[in-house]
Amino acid sequence: MAALATPFTEMLGVRYPIALAPMGSVAGGKLAAAVSEAGGFGFVGGGYGEAQWLAAELRRVKDATRKPWGVGLITWSADRNIVELALAFRPHALLFSFGDPTPYAQMVRAAGCKLVCQVQDLEGARLAKRAGADLIVAQGTEAGGHGGGRATLPFVPAVVDLVAPTPVLAAGGIADGRGLAAALMLGACGALIGTRFYASEESAAHAAAKARIVQAGGERTVRTRVFDVVRGLAWPAQYTGRALRNEFVERWQGREAALAAQGEAGAARYRRAAQEGDFDTAAVWAGENADLIGAVERAPALVERIAAQAEALLRQGARMTQ
Amino acid sequence: MAALATPFTEMLGVRYPIALAPMGSVAGGKLAAAVSEAGGFGFVGGGYGEAQWLAAELRRVKDATRKPWGVGLITWSADRNIVELALAFRPHALLFSFGDPTPYAQMVRAAGCKLVCQVQDLEGARLAKRAGADLIVAQGTEAGGHGGGRATLPFVPAVVDLVAPTPVLAAGGIADGRGLAAALMLGACGALIGTRFYASEESAAHAAAKARIVQAGGERTVRTRVFDVVRGLAWPAQYTGRALRNEFVERWQGREAALAAQGEAGAARYRRAAQEGDFDTAAVWAGENADLIGAVERAPALVERIAAQAEALLRQGARMTQ
Repeated sequence: MAALATPFTEMLGVRYPIALAPMGSVAGGKLAAAVSEAGGFGFVGGGYGEAQWLAAELRRVKDATRKPWGVGLITWSADRNIVELALAFRPHALLFSFGDPTPYAQMVRAAGCKLVCQVQDLEGARLAKRAGADLIVAQGTEAGGHGGGRATLPFVPAVVDLVAPTPVLAAGGIADGRGLAAALMLGACGALIGTRFYASEESAAHAAAKARIVQAGGERTVRTRVFDVVRGLAWPAQYTGRALRNEFVERWQGREAALAAQGEAGAARYRRAAQEGDFDTAAVWAGENADLIGAVERAPALVERIAAQAEALLRQGARMTQ
Repeated sequence: MAALATPFTEMLGVRYPIALAPMGSVAGGKLAAAVSEAGGFGFVGGGYGEAQWLAAELRRVKDATRKPWGVGLITWSADRNIVELALAFRPHALLFSFGDPTPYAQMVRAAGCKLVCQVQDLEGARLAKRAGADLIVAQGTEAGGHGGGRATLPFVPAVVDLVAPTPVLAAGGIADGRGLAAALMLGACGALIGTRFYASEESAAHAAAKARIVQAGGERTVRTRVFDVVRGLAWPAQYTGRALRNEFVERWQGREAALAAQGEAGAARYRRAAQEGDFDTAAVWAGENADLIGAVERAPALVERIAAQAEALLRQGARMTQ
């Protein structure tokens, strides 16, 4: 039944080895359902655990598709309440990233839900394996949004070797069928894709933010803490966020202590800018693959095109060996 | 004739799309000849243009193989004399990295030699294209030794799109057949491989340095300027070197001005440490793919295994689509 069969498509019963990254306040129910309906696997982004927002988005995804879908949570900011809320909607998979998933593993398993752990270094991969992850996402530093310091191409095979036979998805830098086919060659069983879907019609991101990603290239992106500092978010030191360089980054990168000293006044100004779509101030999270993104498109068209290009490349690849 | 046919194997008349990175004082004539004899393409590392050393190594490679081979130079430290010296040995390709190759393009072409340009960002790729490069190497930040800030997986397809139809090699993070097959899926016509061959028997590196690479993982590597600062080398600001973290890095990273102030006394101490194989002080250049390197091996065995694994994966990949 699957058009590109891997352990990922078999485990989750989907057509293509393409997962939507659970981008907070971007991957809402509409985008997740669109990716799942098209044959991929949509993760709703649980973000920092705002229960009301998450419940509304999970109702939306359930209303929109009967295909498999999941939820992603930021491990260090999650608690049992938000995990229970997510599980009550009976997702097929729950993804934990940025922290130790062990405290939640038993709840997820007991609900008959797959435990997915996204990791940024080999220690994280060991932790995920010990927690009994059904699937591990190896995320490279080229990813948009929060992440670590390893690059996808050498990191994925290192994780594959470390956690075998647990299946691995590749994340970070993948925007088209070339990236998906490369991920499969590296030993991953599929790709988790964020930035490409950020700039889709179904994404909940601001239209002006999508437009900036279409305009920008990967060299305009930077890993930074300034957007976490201004919001007063307690991200552990090993995680930074990759975003487009804007006036705010230029002003505050390297001056994080002065930014933190603004306290709630700075946070309020930042919130207002984000609400107003002022992306000279607010963050546009984007990966290095922004070079490969040339238009805002419909998510189902993206899923189909990424899969079809990967399939064509895999067939061509075999011909190189003849 | 080629076992894995790509525009690279056709252009240079080799069997496998595997090139040895021109690692200064590591990729000597012995290693380059071993890679070429095995069906890859060996680049001798010209380093900082020490004419006597380079001439000896080029004599060695010419004596050891009749198969195609090349020379790599650090563009900003090269001059017409060293380019003429290299061309006098009639290499099949001359690789320029880290600077504008334009001043040398005509000399290389006039000698009937292929012009290869390694680039670290899209501006470098544009410059290489304008200079008339026959082949462009897109080098990711996960590479060992000097490099830039882009990650291989998203950078390679961006360069491929920008310079088409000029063929592109992928560099950075590739140590096995998984990485080579992934590079081919990304649109590259082969891979330039450094660190894996650093830890080969034919490599001119110190045995203790090879042993450290075998022991270490990718997370022990770091991009740094400290080894350039202590040697008084005028590397342009956009290039740093990826090396294993050692006592010297721990002591001086972030204190580069104090290190530079040591002047010739510091440089002399550093040279002595390097000669004595004291790698608590001296640099062991290594890429993030150190995770994938488990033993010092013979270079021909590495070439054969990387190619065979890539071929097997490409055949398996086609079966995923059925």
